[in-house]
Amino acid sequence: MKEENEKHIAWHSSYITREDRERSNGHRSCILWLTGLSGSGKSTLAAAIEKELYRQQCRSYILDGDNLRHGINRDLGFDPEDRSENIRRIGELAKLLADAGMITIVAAISPYRQDRDNVRAVCKPGDFVEVYVQCTVEECERRDPKGLYKKVRSGEIKHFTGISAPYEPPLQAELVLRTDELTVSDSVIEVMSYIRSRQLDRASLEKEMES
Amino acid sequence: MKEENEKHIAWHSSYITREDRERSNGHRSCILWLTGLSGSGKSTLAAAIEKELYRQQCRSYILDGDNLRHGINRDLGFDPEDRSENIRRIGELAKLLADAGMITIVAAISPYRQDRDNVRAVCKPGDFVEVYVQCTVEECERRDPKGLYKKVRSGEIKHFTGISAPYEPPLQAELVLRTDELTVSDSVIEVMSYIRSRQLDRASLEKEMES
Repeated sequence: MKEENEKHIAWHSSYITREDRERSNGHRSCILWLTGLSGSGKSTLAAAIEKELYRQQCRSYILDGDNLRHGINRDLGFDPEDRSENIRRIGELAKLLADAGMITIVAAISPYRQDRDNVRAVCKPGDFVEVYVQCTVEECERRDPKGLYKKVRSGEIKHFTGISAPYEPPLQAELVLRTDELTVSDSVIEVMSYIRSRQLDRASLEKEMES
Repeated sequence: MKEENEKHIAWHSSYITREDRERSNGHRSCILWLTGLSGSGKSTLAAAIEKELYRQQCRSYILDGDNLRHGINRDLGFDPEDRSENIRRIGELAKLLADAGMITIVAAISPYRQDRDNVRAVCKPGDFVEVYVQCTVEECERRDPKGLYKKVRSGEIKHFTGISAPYEPPLQAELVLRTDELTVSDSVIEVMSYIRSRQLDRASLEKEMES
């Protein structure tokens, strides 16, 4: 942080706490951080999780790395430094949304382990749920939903994660979803089952509030 | 936007829309943008508005300029360029939270008219509600809740809005609250009355959904 900030910037607390919001919402919040190669199915999975959470009357919101590059991160490119800053900001955004009571679903390649670990480190313990959306690069290239792998092969795109730029898979992800083996619904079931196991869901909070 | 972004970054739509969220929440969302001098009462007012909205079972969230400088904006200082980037990012954050269904309350000095107008321009029409938290600089200095004016007078802080850096008051704010004349409760009443007049409140949305 810039020194002038450290020195003179106060911290303002809100009257309404995250716990108040969680009670209003009827469920806990957290950050589901979906990391994986381009084409591995992060955005598809994020949308399917959101749909299921909505059906269960849970508040959720998707932070899509691609979309954020049109908005808050539009000043950033793809060199390692900008990629790190991209992830740092998405992490701060996700923290705010979790504090606002939302089950926050991040879909971002986030190729560097250190960047993801940095986000985990600034989150409350347990808030950061790393979900490795695993898929072979061959399958991702076969899907190529945005035609990006084609552009890589033709030389139009230079630094591309998994081909010409590194992807560092998680070492201890809370969840690993092999999207080259599972259907989307099966993946959603795994995520929902994780949410229940962590007692982040509606039924668990209700039970807790009764007791 | 960096050219590489413009070219290759897709836009992903979510299944669940802002309208879905507004229906779930029972009220519409918007951005209440509180602008004014340091010490004018933005944070106090933001907290009081949030409390009242919570009482009325409305989802709201405060984005406090000071707090964000400890997080997403911690790489930014106080020169005009960084101040603009600070406001641009807060604007993008506020847009996301409004899209997530929250009545988003921004408390940020946001001294430059152009910066505020830029945020207004990227918001959906009607979403950006400029609230001028007006107070004489003499009264702000008398209050000096963070002891900053004292530090300005002693020379410890150089560029300070209203003293040694410009503050450009809004020309057509949706609301003007004279915090040197009104009590906090009276200001909250004015804000709530504005929210009702715009039919952003719970009762209005319920009526709309019935018809």
